[in-house]
Amino acid sequence: MENLKLAGINGHTAERTIITVGKVRIGAEFVVIAGPCSVENEEQTIKTAIQVKEAGAHILRGGAFKPRSSPYAFQGLGIKGLQILEKAKKETGLPVVTEVLDPRDVSWICEYADILQIGTRNMQNFSLLKEVGKAGKPVLLKRGMYSTLKEWLNCAEYVLAEGNPNVILCERGIRSFETYTRNTLDLAIVPSVKEVTHLPIIVDPSHGTGRMSLIEPMSLASVAAGAHGIMVEVHCNPGEALSDGDQSLPPSMFADMMKKIEFINSCMKKINTLKDK
Amino acid sequence: MENLKLAGINGHTAERTIITVGKVRIGAEFVVIAGPCSVENEEQTIKTAIQVKEAGAHILRGGAFKPRSSPYAFQGLGIKGLQILEKAKKETGLPVVTEVLDPRDVSWICEYADILQIGTRNMQNFSLLKEVGKAGKPVLLKRGMYSTLKEWLNCAEYVLAEGNPNVILCERGIRSFETYTRNTLDLAIVPSVKEVTHLPIIVDPSHGTGRMSLIEPMSLASVAAGAHGIMVEVHCNPGEALSDGDQSLPPSMFADMMKKIEFINSCMKKINTLKDK
Amino acid sequence: MENLKLAGINGHTAERTIITVGKVRIGAEFVVIAGPCSVENEEQTIKTAIQVKEAGAHILRGGAFKPRSSPYAFQGLGIKGLQILEKAKKETGLPVVTEVLDPRDVSWICEYADILQIGTRNMQNFSLLKEVGKAGKPVLLKRGMYSTLKEWLNCAEYVLAEGNPNVILCERGIRSFETYTRNTLDLAIVPSVKEVTHLPIIVDPSHGTGRMSLIEPMSLASVAAGAHGIMVEVHCNPGEALSDGDQSLPPSMFADMMKKIEFINSCMKKINTLKDK
Amino acid sequence: MENLKLAGINGHTAERTIITVGKVRIGAEFVVIAGPCSVENEEQTIKTAIQVKEAGAHILRGGAFKPRSSPYAFQGLGIKGLQILEKAKKETGLPVVTEVLDPRDVSWICEYADILQIGTRNMQNFSLLKEVGKAGKPVLLKRGMYSTLKEWLNCAEYVLAEGNPNVILCERGIRSFETYTRNTLDLAIVPSVKEVTHLPIIVDPSHGTGRMSLIEPMSLASVAAGAHGIMVEVHCNPGEALSDGDQSLPPSMFADMMKKIEFINSCMKKINTLKDK
Repeated sequence: MENLKLAGINGHTAERTIITVGKVRIGAEFVVIAGPCSVENEEQTIKTAIQVKEAGAHILRGGAFKPRSSPYAFQGLGIKGLQILEKAKKETGLPVVTEVLDPRDVSWICEYADILQIGTRNMQNFSLLKEVGKAGKPVLLKRGMYSTLKEWLNCAEYVLAEGNPNVILCERGIRSFETYTRNTLDLAIVPSVKEVTHLPIIVDPSHGTGRMSLIEPMSLASVAAGAHGIMVEVHCNPGEALSDGDQSLPPSMFADMMKKIEFINSCMKKINTLKDK
Repeated sequence: MENLKLAGINGHTAERTIITVGKVRIGAEFVVIAGPCSVENEEQTIKTAIQVKEAGAHILRGGAFKPRSSPYAFQGLGIKGLQILEKAKKETGLPVVTEVLDPRDVSWICEYADILQIGTRNMQNFSLLKEVGKAGKPVLLKRGMYSTLKEWLNCAEYVLAEGNPNVILCERGIRSFETYTRNTLDLAIVPSVKEVTHLPIIVDPSHGTGRMSLIEPMSLASVAAGAHGIMVEVHCNPGEALSDGDQSLPPSMFADMMKKIEFINSCMKKINTLKDK
Repeated sequence: MENLKLAGINGHTAERTIITVGKVRIGAEFVVIAGPCSVENEEQTIKTAIQVKEAGAHILRGGAFKPRSSPYAFQGLGIKGLQILEKAKKETGLPVVTEVLDPRDVSWICEYADILQIGTRNMQNFSLLKEVGKAGKPVLLKRGMYSTLKEWLNCAEYVLAEGNPNVILCERGIRSFETYTRNTLDLAIVPSVKEVTHLPIIVDPSHGTGRMSLIEPMSLASVAAGAHGIMVEVHCNPGEALSDGDQSLPPSMFADMMKKIEFINSCMKKINTLKDK
Repeated sequence: MENLKLAGINGHTAERTIITVGKVRIGAEFVVIAGPCSVENEEQTIKTAIQVKEAGAHILRGGAFKPRSSPYAFQGLGIKGLQILEKAKKETGLPVVTEVLDPRDVSWICEYADILQIGTRNMQNFSLLKEVGKAGKPVLLKRGMYSTLKEWLNCAEYVLAEGNPNVILCERGIRSFETYTRNTLDLAIVPSVKEVTHLPIIVDPSHGTGRMSLIEPMSLASVAAGAHGIMVEVHCNPGEALSDGDQSLPPSMFADMMKKIEFINSCMKKINTLKDK
């Protein structure tokens, strides 16, 4: 693809990007990011954080600023949410990823977050991309629900062009006519991404399907498709979640799933050894 | 539609919103917004402005900050572009609409613009919506290329909820599998919008089709579908445009089209009289 | 577009195809096809036929063989339905268009129908296309709800390649993520079609929108976009229709709409005279 | 889902359908269907058949009647193609699946085919569905590239309602705006299908992606997502294929992939044992 001066593989065999966050090496090992959709209160967040940590998650997710369709829906706890995430990090040692919505918030959110998330609705918010490009923290860039591979990688290029090489791509489903699932998870984009860019690519099966029952099979499929990780919504009590309860796993289901992921991941490592022969 | 406390018609027959900008009454008379995609330089902009004014356009459009897919594409002239628009306004008397990309720019762009445009990629940039809601200037809110009617109106609600009642909706085409046109212009959204909200709705056939040859028929169809106006890209020399040359009309074609629009508009007025009998 | 040996304009200025059915000249005058979705019984069909004739319709539509999503839904009256259409034709003098679903039925349905309709689900039913190509009767070829312009014209080419030059294209909406309307009516396809093929193009705003309230504005917009006609579902009692009641006009609304169509059509004729100057 | 009297699970825990074809038990073991897109000649077909058999495929695919976008493209060898498939079957012992396009052909194609394929363009060709329902042979029903889960299962219901319980569903990608891949493979439909119907579900990663390089990762992902099998295009010389060369695997790549599929499949069996605990 033309114009991807920094993000593209561009013919020559670029080394794949590995992004180190604490002890986690994104792009090198299969990474599981888990946690609640929204930070709702201290108890819910810390409880969930401990549970996902025990089950084997590597990074904690949690939204303090929530992009909601309606102005009258819960908009997140804001700075209070970030302070709760900070406590959860101290409690568990897990690095934190959280979404940033406004270029004016980038610098101070950096004090709380280990990874800045750009959501699907802001994929082409170029002011925000430039700002997180300057901030230096790793960026988790979700694919726009309407965006082609080419447009997505050009948005990564916006971040890279500001001098920040640490972009993690995240497939989270695109829009189609199908209504059984909330979005259409485009899993073939995983090996496609790996053909054209050296950046790591993870999958969000929670938003990608919108259904609790589909998260596990799509997580396993993500491992098999070659993803570098997944990002999953886990809530200590999905039925009472303020947002995305339908697509959040309870901690017990998450723990079960983690065992299967470890198993299939070790299987894939062996398969990749076959590949190299 | 639920939750549209301010944007919705909500059962009772709300009066339709009319937005006054200079002498133009958007929502009351058919309004034509025309001008270049990008402000490229003073000569091009003023020349085009004079030509669209002479042909009968009511408002001048022109981008000073351009949201471009690639970071290496022309990003607009920025403040210099706004100053050129100011001159074009003085020269022609036409009010100016220009796009704003960043919440930090809203207050000072207000000094140059009569209407603030929110582009399709920023439809759900909620920080930006809140900021233009506070700014007080009328807002032209383009439909997200991936967005449902309900999501779009909720974004209008974000602006209204900040105390700014002056939102103009603009259909600009959605994404589909069809590749002959750049987007799929969803003209049925025009009467649909009028069923559920009192806000005015205009159509952008330039982005909606991406082809110069389709702008005129789709503009006439917009009038017949009941739109309150159109927004058209006109360039004094489309072949040399720095952006969107393929979908810009040369001034002569625009002037021809304007005669037809006036004709069909007067025809529609008579038809609407039939309706009331 | 390559490979459209017969359907394409192919550089040289082909004369546009005009298809004569009884006194109607499709492609030359604006044609209105109207009638019930399904032929349900003699009374309903003949009553509706008389009403649409009185309102000015040129051709009667009515389905005897219905392609239904579920095997347990009403499948149409079959041959009995065709016999009813024959009576309605005798009563009103209106030529009849009806859908054919099976290549085995083509030859004998030809005895009842003046125009054979290929529905959206059968657009790429190549056996059926070849059979109607051989049958000689004019063919109304609906666009597949998933099909590109190129694919659609290639299906017309299938009919033409069998020696049948009389294909009427019919846009009926495509699939998108928008759910307010049943389909997304792609009105820009009308002038697009006219750029690449000499075949006539009509619009079906009933299926294209799926909402009674949107049929009139989209019909007027079709005239303005340059369509050669429309195809509208009319039912003497939409609330009791066995299929598509939500998108059928009652005869009184249809009659009102016809006056407006005549008015805007005469307006468009004047505009086209302007064009030629 | 309502109206799925026979195809639906409908609350009670139906036993899952297992379809026996020769020694193959579809729905019970992971099944690999492989072979050329089109039967082009005896040498190509038998050579490919032997190679896929040796690599471990269970069923041979090959098209004798090809649904092609253009009437001027290679339309398949017809009955000659079926005779070649018969020879390939004798040579290898592999059961044969081949596409049927026309209800008039069903009865005699049954003499050559072990499984009748309904292609994506004919998913809602209800005449054809009824005919294959009567014929008694197992039916491989591809999802329409535009169809929802509900519509697809209703098409299976058409076959079942004729007394034929042996329907294999096949996901082959749907249409979206993404152009890097030929279609968007909707892998989440696999566990979704298993939630609402007892029929087996396989995946076609060749059409689903349209790119040779994506077939292996998407095949492995299909296993992990819980599919009952895959259907893959293999050509002894993809560069010279008369159709779909870009998405056909050469036999060596197919053989490599089969080893990995066996490995991940045994891994998934162990995971499913974990599940039952």
